[in-house]
Amino acid sequence: MANPGQPALIGLDWGTSSLRGHLVAADGSVIETIRQPWGIQHLPSGGYAEAYRGVTGAWLSSRPDLPVLASGMVGSRQGWREAAYVDCPADAASFAAGLLRFDTGTGPLAIVPGLMQRGRLPEVMRGEETQIIGALAADPALAARALFILPGTHSKWAVVRAGRIEQFQTFMTGELFALLRDHSLLGRPAREADPTGTSAAPPAIDAAAFRQGVTMAQESGPSGIAGRLFTTRSLWLAGDLPAAASLDYLSGLLVGEEIRSGLAARGGEPLPPLVLSGEAALCDRYREALGIFGVTDVRVLGDTAAAGLWTIAAAAGLVSAAATSPGSFADA
Amino acid sequence: MANPGQPALIGLDWGTSSLRGHLVAADGSVIETIRQPWGIQHLPSGGYAEAYRGVTGAWLSSRPDLPVLASGMVGSRQGWREAAYVDCPADAASFAAGLLRFDTGTGPLAIVPGLMQRGRLPEVMRGEETQIIGALAADPALAARALFILPGTHSKWAVVRAGRIEQFQTFMTGELFALLRDHSLLGRPAREADPTGTSAAPPAIDAAAFRQGVTMAQESGPSGIAGRLFTTRSLWLAGDLPAAASLDYLSGLLVGEEIRSGLAARGGEPLPPLVLSGEAALCDRYREALGIFGVTDVRVLGDTAAAGLWTIAAAAGLVSAAATSPGSFADA
Repeated sequence: MANPGQPALIGLDWGTSSLRGHLVAADGSVIETIRQPWGIQHLPSGGYAEAYRGVTGAWLSSRPDLPVLASGMVGSRQGWREAAYVDCPADAASFAAGLLRFDTGTGPLAIVPGLMQRGRLPEVMRGEETQIIGALAADPALAARALFILPGTHSKWAVVRAGRIEQFQTFMTGELFALLRDHSLLGRPAREADPTGTSAAPPAIDAAAFRQGVTMAQESGPSGIAGRLFTTRSLWLAGDLPAAASLDYLSGLLVGEEIRSGLAARGGEPLPPLVLSGEAALCDRYREALGIFGVTDVRVLGDTAAAGLWTIAAAAGLVSAAATSPGSFADA
Repeated sequence: MANPGQPALIGLDWGTSSLRGHLVAADGSVIETIRQPWGIQHLPSGGYAEAYRGVTGAWLSSRPDLPVLASGMVGSRQGWREAAYVDCPADAASFAAGLLRFDTGTGPLAIVPGLMQRGRLPEVMRGEETQIIGALAADPALAARALFILPGTHSKWAVVRAGRIEQFQTFMTGELFALLRDHSLLGRPAREADPTGTSAAPPAIDAAAFRQGVTMAQESGPSGIAGRLFTTRSLWLAGDLPAAASLDYLSGLLVGEEIRSGLAARGGEPLPPLVLSGEAALCDRYREALGIFGVTDVRVLGDTAAAGLWTIAAAAGLVSAAATSPGSFADA
């Protein structure tokens, strides 16, 4: 085995809106991370190859033998090369067996396949499978039985049992929020109150408005928020919701509906250990919202993509599996 | 009373996306209708005054004494002049008492106020109140007790009792559909299959895909469609939904969720007589969807805005109330 602190893998977490490159050591720890906005919908003018060289170039020039493994939308039909889905249930070995390998022109690249659930309720994920595999590597106790929530543009709820991702469901919460904020009547008061755009200078979170939205969703019960979404506007019209707080209220409504719906879909079944994994600020919102639903036993993990890439690379023999599990992915 | 066939009122149904002018006779029947795309978000260069003259000019030049009454978003804060909301519950007399009257420069105009429901679940409507009042005038039996569904950009479900609109709820079904079709990942396969735009040449409705979407919403039960919306994409990815059918499936999901949620909000309470009022093709979709939920006793009314304007004008003394109720608003 190589020196445990020496670079052993370049892992690329390559999604729709960003590209994160991790230089991973032989013991699974992350030596360095480079983040670029070059998601597959925001590539530089030179396309995939330029983005790839931009992130891996310096690392590969000193260590041209390093294997490179990518996960996420880069392997989708709209990505660089399509890495065909593997079927659910799946574990690290399933993803390792399904790697797509090709020559980028700057050396070989392997891409982790997405995961497909077939049947009447088909589902797909790309990238989240790697995060989940990383979380299981970081804490093998979770592998026995856990419910993962990975908040985001398309939130995923995934049930893990015996080390395998067994089934999952997608909630378009983040995309719906962005659509309603940017294009609907609901976002207009906030857009007019801050015409420079909230994304340019995000205002402080109005925690009370967020909780009010979550509570509105929680109280909607089996009817859900379909008939309450419009309260984002009518509360404002009635003078009961300031324009500046309306987006946090809307966020609360949508996150609350995701949780209401996700919990309702489980019927009365007891919850397995619940894990939130993803961006810290978003996980905080979900933890807060889950608390309003009475779910307080929640584990929050940070970004586990690098650990997942390492684990899959090891399962595929791209790197020699270290005796130690990745040690740098403690709870966030 | 004037000759019952002679013009007695100009009624303007003036919403966000269109302006319909009705020349109404002294017996309440519609003599002529002019439709223009001059909704308050699509005004001609000369603004409200030009749109107003364009629709009423010819009628007023021969009968400058005709009263003009408008309803809809023209009376909103973003409209020509704001007609303050009246409070729920409200009947024709409430709206008549709340008319906003002003001089357009081309003679006087009265605008029907919107309706506001106060409390923890505030709601607003503008325009739909006039449609409902018109439906009650056309069939007084409905005034006793009815549940109105007015499908559209913002669908309204309104409970009528003893001639008054007692409570109502808004579902943003039409706006959500347009947002998802035009801006989300869900609409992309259809957009790419028909890059000229579906609105330019709407394809034939795929009735089976629409029913499939409604059924998916109906089967979601208390969890609702939050975790199923994404099946619009995953069914397509799995090869189980053609791109050309995906928008009808999405429409079925959203209309189905509106109905699922609206029925769930009533608990087990028996349904009052149910009335659909609005655009014929949209009412057809809702009738079909209601049938999938086992609700088959549905009355479908056409556009009753002119009858509502007439009824409110009569209650306000703008026209002398005829002995007969409006006769030209039979079931569609």
